[in-house]
Amino acid sequence: MGRRAGVALDVDGTLVDSVHHHAVCWQRALAQLGHDVSAARAHRHVGMGGDQLVEALIGAEGEARDGDALRASHDALFAIDLPTVRPLPGARDLLVALAREGAPVVLASSASEDEVRHYLDLLDADDLVAGWTTADDVDATKPDGALLQVAWRTLGTEAAVMIGDSPWDVLAAQDAGMPAIGVDAAGFGCASLREAGAALVVDGLPDLLDRVHDEPFVQWRDGARSAV
Amino acid sequence: MGRRAGVALDVDGTLVDSVHHHAVCWQRALAQLGHDVSAARAHRHVGMGGDQLVEALIGAEGEARDGDALRASHDALFAIDLPTVRPLPGARDLLVALAREGAPVVLASSASEDEVRHYLDLLDADDLVAGWTTADDVDATKPDGALLQVAWRTLGTEAAVMIGDSPWDVLAAQDAGMPAIGVDAAGFGCASLREAGAALVVDGLPDLLDRVHDEPFVQWRDGARSAV
Repeated sequence: MGRRAGVALDVDGTLVDSVHHHAVCWQRALAQLGHDVSAARAHRHVGMGGDQLVEALIGAEGEARDGDALRASHDALFAIDLPTVRPLPGARDLLVALAREGAPVVLASSASEDEVRHYLDLLDADDLVAGWTTADDVDATKPDGALLQVAWRTLGTEAAVMIGDSPWDVLAAQDAGMPAIGVDAAGFGCASLREAGAALVVDGLPDLLDRVHDEPFVQWRDGARSAV
Repeated sequence: MGRRAGVALDVDGTLVDSVHHHAVCWQRALAQLGHDVSAARAHRHVGMGGDQLVEALIGAEGEARDGDALRASHDALFAIDLPTVRPLPGARDLLVALAREGAPVVLASSASEDEVRHYLDLLDADDLVAGWTTADDVDATKPDGALLQVAWRTLGTEAAVMIGDSPWDVLAAQDAGMPAIGVDAAGFGCASLREAGAALVVDGLPDLLDRVHDEPFVQWRDGARSAV
């Protein structure tokens, strides 16, 4: 059990700039099967796991009929985009800063094992994280809290906080009993992160890094520690 | 001079679902020349003409050094995406409804001639519009009002209103002396459209269509007519 709070850190849209790519891939996969969903509407659901996203976009009937095919198509299209996905500004700096603070980090992702490993390479972060989750770790992904509970167990700390870019991250954190920092880095907007219940909302990772030693941030972090 | 107000209608993000594609293409073009700009940040600037967007994202020095190359790269990358861009829900219905109302429509786009013609085909809208603008029509694109002034001259009506999805559309409309309807269809958010000064903000084209015969909308339209 560590003295510091551990950090469950989202990957897509928080550390890497992939949300727009995912939105376009979902829009294309859906259009190919005759479902008219705009990229903007798909965007708002990226960050849910693929197991939940399809039903949220086209309903239970659409999921039953086309869900598996849509996920396969999305994954095939996204594999073309993957090599062009870049880290978001401040991503590696945040991992380095958290390591320096002695706060263990687990990547709380519902991406595939291959994708998470690709992003670890891209961020040169293998030595900076204590572990990661993938979609295979749970039956239900975000906004369900199960993935974050797995992350927390991997952290092995008394307290844990979540850092993520989407309302689905914030809702999942609440479901798992962690406070959440919302990072407005991938287009979800500060308002939707606040509405979901984020304890703190920042403009991007550089904004979060600026605050790591600020009194409000330290208070918030201490609050997170004592809240659990 | 017609009795009805004419309509200057934005294309990208308003009639066709292209904003996320443009955002990713700008992000990729910028990354290839060493500029770290996230897709979310690029997204917020789509709707400005390419002549203004680069400077807004990477400053005057970046524009002077790389502007032309970035625009060429963006256009080359977007040409790959173009065949997968789909109309937004309600796009053709809106054009049909405006034609039925006797309101002439000019597409107020700063895309290339080829792109605008492609979208006219996609929407089967050749007979539904009185004309269109392209980037070639003006020296400065949105948020400058020049493009909308050209559109208004093409409309030949006493009054004109603008319909667009981005704050840049709304600002350009104000610069040209038209009220603007903001359509939150491509991820800019209702709040940013209101802040820019939109006279009316709707959730998407189907929401706008529902209101075409409502009293508030008719009042707004009449206001637009008498305002000029």
